[in-house]
Amino acid sequence: MINKLITKIRKTNAPIVAGLDPMMKYVPEHIRKAAFAEHGETLEGAAEAIWQYNKGIVDAIYDLVPAVKPQIAMYEQFGIPGLVTFQKTVDYCREKDLVVIGDVKRGDIGSTSEAYAVGHLGKVQVGNHFYSAFGEDFATVNPYLGSDGVKPFLKVCAEEKKGIFVLIKTSNPSSGELQDRLVKAAAGAEAAEENRDRPLYEIVGRYVAEWGEQCMPQEGPYSYVGAVVGATYPEQGRILRKMMPKAFILVPGYGAQGGKGADLVHFFNEDGLGAIINSSRGIIAAYQQEKYARFGEQGYADASRAAVLDMKEDIASALEQRC
Amino acid sequence: MINKLITKIRKTNAPIVAGLDPMMKYVPEHIRKAAFAEHGETLEGAAEAIWQYNKGIVDAIYDLVPAVKPQIAMYEQFGIPGLVTFQKTVDYCREKDLVVIGDVKRGDIGSTSEAYAVGHLGKVQVGNHFYSAFGEDFATVNPYLGSDGVKPFLKVCAEEKKGIFVLIKTSNPSSGELQDRLVKAAAGAEAAEENRDRPLYEIVGRYVAEWGEQCMPQEGPYSYVGAVVGATYPEQGRILRKMMPKAFILVPGYGAQGGKGADLVHFFNEDGLGAIINSSRGIIAAYQQEKYARFGEQGYADASRAAVLDMKEDIASALEQRC
Repeated sequence: MINKLITKIRKTNAPIVAGLDPMMKYVPEHIRKAAFAEHGETLEGAAEAIWQYNKGIVDAIYDLVPAVKPQIAMYEQFGIPGLVTFQKTVDYCREKDLVVIGDVKRGDIGSTSEAYAVGHLGKVQVGNHFYSAFGEDFATVNPYLGSDGVKPFLKVCAEEKKGIFVLIKTSNPSSGELQDRLVKAAAGAEAAEENRDRPLYEIVGRYVAEWGEQCMPQEGPYSYVGAVVGATYPEQGRILRKMMPKAFILVPGYGAQGGKGADLVHFFNEDGLGAIINSSRGIIAAYQQEKYARFGEQGYADASRAAVLDMKEDIASALEQRC
Repeated sequence: MINKLITKIRKTNAPIVAGLDPMMKYVPEHIRKAAFAEHGETLEGAAEAIWQYNKGIVDAIYDLVPAVKPQIAMYEQFGIPGLVTFQKTVDYCREKDLVVIGDVKRGDIGSTSEAYAVGHLGKVQVGNHFYSAFGEDFATVNPYLGSDGVKPFLKVCAEEKKGIFVLIKTSNPSSGELQDRLVKAAAGAEAAEENRDRPLYEIVGRYVAEWGEQCMPQEGPYSYVGAVVGATYPEQGRILRKMMPKAFILVPGYGAQGGKGADLVHFFNEDGLGAIINSSRGIIAAYQQEKYARFGEQGYADASRAAVLDMKEDIASALEQRC
């Protein structure tokens, strides 16, 4: 699936993932009204509104971007009906041949992480049958519990040729509270360079590189194991890029969170690959920005398309200036 | 809700939470057969089997324990039908007046964590209406993203009088890979004691104590913000217990994972409170242990009841020996 992602990035010439993180306040009134008319102001009504909203956006951008990243929290808050919409969104995007990154940030111990891995990327056994439950192509994974929590995902990735992005340095303002803590060098390690004090995110980066080595596709330079590093931390991106040459980096924080095209160049490898930049609000709620206000609520999906085209241009020009 | 938990612990005299982490291999054959006869070997069939299995256990133990902890991964792996069973289990346990700890280990940035907090502990707005989606009483939270990821939960906890348990030191063998890393003291801090190098779990412990101070119920010594510390790490439990006197500690790892009654005493405060010990497999799959084999598959729920009574005895005798 990492190779499909690369092929699609090359084809679209857009290392962009559209974050499908719908909030009710983004959903245009005509869609909300229609959904509530049918289902009332209920969880089902909210779920239907989000589904119609998503579908409009996907129809407008699926030929421009290689991938989408639905954020499951935005669906889970509406309970079972919300998760049905998550499922429908995943299925619909896969029908449109988009690579689907489930932004689920799961992580637990042993058999529990295995259940998450199976439910999101693999197949669960029921009697003599096997079923794909949510069936994303990639999932984001939280590393706080250590290797025990990640290895079940590696197993499923190898079996299914799917992938994960492990959280290393997240885009939010307080990510440094734990992730930037300076960790003391281990006593007695031999090489001085290896034995310096380093921030926690580098420790996680080393694990990601190590897990990635164990989980390579048959062909191609990139591993099934990628990383999440926020666009808001370009300097850390530069360091982590070098530490994990085989890891694709999923980069959130572009646009609404403050990351700019010029910040992104360090996340890419020399081959022009190795990073995929996420924008959520900036794409899906583009029509609410002054820049795209001309599209109006009715034209929200066209506004999303225009925002993708602008983002593509912004990244391409930043990458050109690097060369 | 923390006060309800305390009242129920006192009433049952059992600081025990039953982990409802069903795996298909635990479900007795007669239950599986009946569910598959009705729904086939499908996700719905698996979900129905797990629901019947859970119901039997809850009916057998609800008068003995204050709380249950369903692990959502075990339901999520069966997709939507699995999550419907999660929801039914939460609802049923609440009807039985059990405190429900959703073991969801969620955590994300700002508005995304807010969605998780709302979905699991709070109420989500749809038009002019508010709905409780999953409606647990407590949720477990992953702190890797820092305060941004936790504060939305604090807000919902204060509004709803509900609670969270933040992962500090998890029970699994590899938890030390990140959690035990020795973090360098900050330069220039004044008090020498405060300025020593300390493991990452102590850093998180300090945050938990701080978040907890901001989130106290009107009465009672314990905060809405608790912590997860594994029974398999009693020494760390002792240290963290002292650092966070107002935090209830949820202690996984008893029984099947190797934690023993004698390891648990350090997790409790002098008032005999402050900790609640989880057992999952040890309770729900008790009938598969030699010790309870006499109950047979048909008597699986009675075996669970016997296992709870034995666990209660084990903990009480360990606590008595401390005094």
